[in-house]
Amino acid sequence: MLPYPLGIVETLAISTGSRILLIVLDGVGDAAQESETPLAAARTPHLDVLAEGASLGLSTAVAPGITPGSGPGHLSLFGYDPFAYDVGRGVLSALGLGLAPDQVAARGNFATVDAGGTIVDRRAGRIATELNQALIAALAAAIPEIDGVRIDLHTEAEYRFVVRLTGSGLGGQVADSDPGRVGEAPLEPRPLADDPADRRTARVLARFAERARQILADLRAARDAKPPVNAVLLRGIGRKPDLPQFPAITRMRAGAIAAYPMYRGVARLVGMECVPMDLSGAGERTEAKLAAYEAHAAAHDFLYFHVKKIDSAGEDGDFAKKVAEIEAFDAIVPRLRAASPDVVVVTGDHSTPVPLKAHSWHPLPVLIWSGVARPDRRRFTEADCRGGSLGTLRHLDLLPLAMANAGKLNKYGA
Amino acid sequence: MLPYPLGIVETLAISTGSRILLIVLDGVGDAAQESETPLAAARTPHLDVLAEGASLGLSTAVAPGITPGSGPGHLSLFGYDPFAYDVGRGVLSALGLGLAPDQVAARGNFATVDAGGTIVDRRAGRIATELNQALIAALAAAIPEIDGVRIDLHTEAEYRFVVRLTGSGLGGQVADSDPGRVGEAPLEPRPLADDPADRRTARVLARFAERARQILADLRAARDAKPPVNAVLLRGIGRKPDLPQFPAITRMRAGAIAAYPMYRGVARLVGMECVPMDLSGAGERTEAKLAAYEAHAAAHDFLYFHVKKIDSAGEDGDFAKKVAEIEAFDAIVPRLRAASPDVVVVTGDHSTPVPLKAHSWHPLPVLIWSGVARPDRRRFTEADCRGGSLGTLRHLDLLPLAMANAGKLNKYGA
Repeated sequence: MLPYPLGIVETLAISTGSRILLIVLDGVGDAAQESETPLAAARTPHLDVLAEGASLGLSTAVAPGITPGSGPGHLSLFGYDPFAYDVGRGVLSALGLGLAPDQVAARGNFATVDAGGTIVDRRAGRIATELNQALIAALAAAIPEIDGVRIDLHTEAEYRFVVRLTGSGLGGQVADSDPGRVGEAPLEPRPLADDPADRRTARVLARFAERARQILADLRAARDAKPPVNAVLLRGIGRKPDLPQFPAITRMRAGAIAAYPMYRGVARLVGMECVPMDLSGAGERTEAKLAAYEAHAAAHDFLYFHVKKIDSAGEDGDFAKKVAEIEAFDAIVPRLRAASPDVVVVTGDHSTPVPLKAHSWHPLPVLIWSGVARPDRRRFTEADCRGGSLGTLRHLDLLPLAMANAGKLNKYGA
Repeated sequence: MLPYPLGIVETLAISTGSRILLIVLDGVGDAAQESETPLAAARTPHLDVLAEGASLGLSTAVAPGITPGSGPGHLSLFGYDPFAYDVGRGVLSALGLGLAPDQVAARGNFATVDAGGTIVDRRAGRIATELNQALIAALAAAIPEIDGVRIDLHTEAEYRFVVRLTGSGLGGQVADSDPGRVGEAPLEPRPLADDPADRRTARVLARFAERARQILADLRAARDAKPPVNAVLLRGIGRKPDLPQFPAITRMRAGAIAAYPMYRGVARLVGMECVPMDLSGAGERTEAKLAAYEAHAAAHDFLYFHVKKIDSAGEDGDFAKKVAEIEAFDAIVPRLRAASPDVVVVTGDHSTPVPLKAHSWHPLPVLIWSGVARPDRRRFTEADCRGGSLGTLRHLDLLPLAMANAGKLNKYGA
């Protein structure tokens, strides 16, 4: 039996004509100390109408006190316990690049070592993202391939990048080269099993790290940085995991509407279709997402709709901007409802409180609207959702709740 | 990976300068039917100020309906799932005596057998603690050692005592001599593995039980009791367990401030330092604990501060005394806050409701105060904590939550 809730969902799921809309307001939860939260301060007339007839609660994304990255936060929302499905960080980071089953990904750090080769800063003084981009461009030009394996490099932010290997005979079981602490030398990437494919990946990554050090030593921008950028550390090495597939388990035709590669990648990982949309331009791309939604809503039993910029405002610590982004989302609620979903779930993948300027562990407000939900007659705010009739639950509980509200789960037992 | 939450904490913990204060109000939860609870009745102006800016919730110590002893209640608070770390009851009872790695402890019952040696009362009519003390004094005088092994005896309460063995070559894998029911004879203590050390412990305990029966048969006080006290039953035999150590897992310098041996023992078991304090005198020893706290707060990342007498008032079924002890704690809150902890957690290890005069399973109010907690603007009472933004959680969740509030846990996943 699959881990909760996938196992019980697989047992009880039935195919029906009802449709579920899961709206993920990235980073929506907040934790204001002195004032109200952005959700409480925002003017959200359309969301208020939805909440009025919905059951509310607070939902912990992964576990109390655990601050999730977007990967575990979304996996939980889709019903995949991130403790049971431990997707490598390199893989999650590489999802934005796209990751085919025969490719291997790893996360990289730009780091600083001393003259003896001992790590003195695992993050090279948290270099600016712009310097990272310049260094990645230089490395990408100099190391297009190693031993017949194509090397793709991608800046994440600050000192973090992703490396993706494409080639035949690559294994994913290779230990980190990052020892996780200063005062030691970087480790050789080491195969975790006695397997030729793992050895091949380890050899290619070792050669990549060696070539990267040579190139960084020659690069003036890397030498002049304080501290200098003169090494790379690799971790979270892995292949695309073979997750049980959401459509087969839930008996729902499932689609994802998201503009950013990371979110499209995690949806694809669980087997959702990434609904075709216009990905030109940058930012929220609201109109393109709405057009895709309106064109494809009827053809899916489950649609995941991602809203990004609320999180970005939280990361910036910008209260007014977070309020404005929530109000911008409120303005599209009528168009989302116009396609007549039978169940609407609204929550986030994690909190991003303005005072913290970062992801956090705080439980998220959640709303489940349907024709059979017990209405709590409140607003969708942290304070109103606290003590709502859903209580405090976990994101893993939301998939079965949404399916139950849609009449998509049989009775359990006689 | 260690059981939740230790495994994920070990993975994510980072060392920082922030400091956590965990205040354990022993037995603080209550369950009044007609009236308010002692927490609601108490005048607690300082606790009210702390609660005003804190997140509140109800926390189940071990599992719903499970009434924990102080050992499992504290292990849960420290992040050790008591179902995964099944510390022998003899060991927990003996922690008050101190238990070195080479010693073995067992719990004992004074019991009643009939003329044929069959157990007719496993608790000898629940004799008074005073009679237990008199019998223990007689046994201790008569059986100082067996086969080179020192025997230490200690009254717990009513029919219960602890025996501790000190000597070389003692094993801890020995089955109970208590069959757990009447109508059978006491069992011979039996080694659980084919190990000379276990056989030696079994032989010493068998000889102890035999000598105890001879001495009880000669003791007028034991013969005159109704029913007579004429046998001992042994259970929970074991050595000090080798638990994973709290400071290494959490990357926190951890200290315990507690006056009673049991609580110092359980803290020491998980590797906390017992902060030096004046242990002379008896009772709460508030001034000695505060002096130790003030002297050592800055040198620890995590301090556990134990308050005992609230539980004692609950055990006595004395509502007014429980209120008074809560108010006495409230009076020291300003001194506890004066050392400027970054995170304050207040809860208990179990409830001890006045109407029950005993430990109970009722979930406990919990408060987490920090600069990043979502404030619930309520009081620290059972009713106000119900529906607080922490929801209803388990004691095992509190360690990660406290560490998250202190900025001591990295993000989980990308």
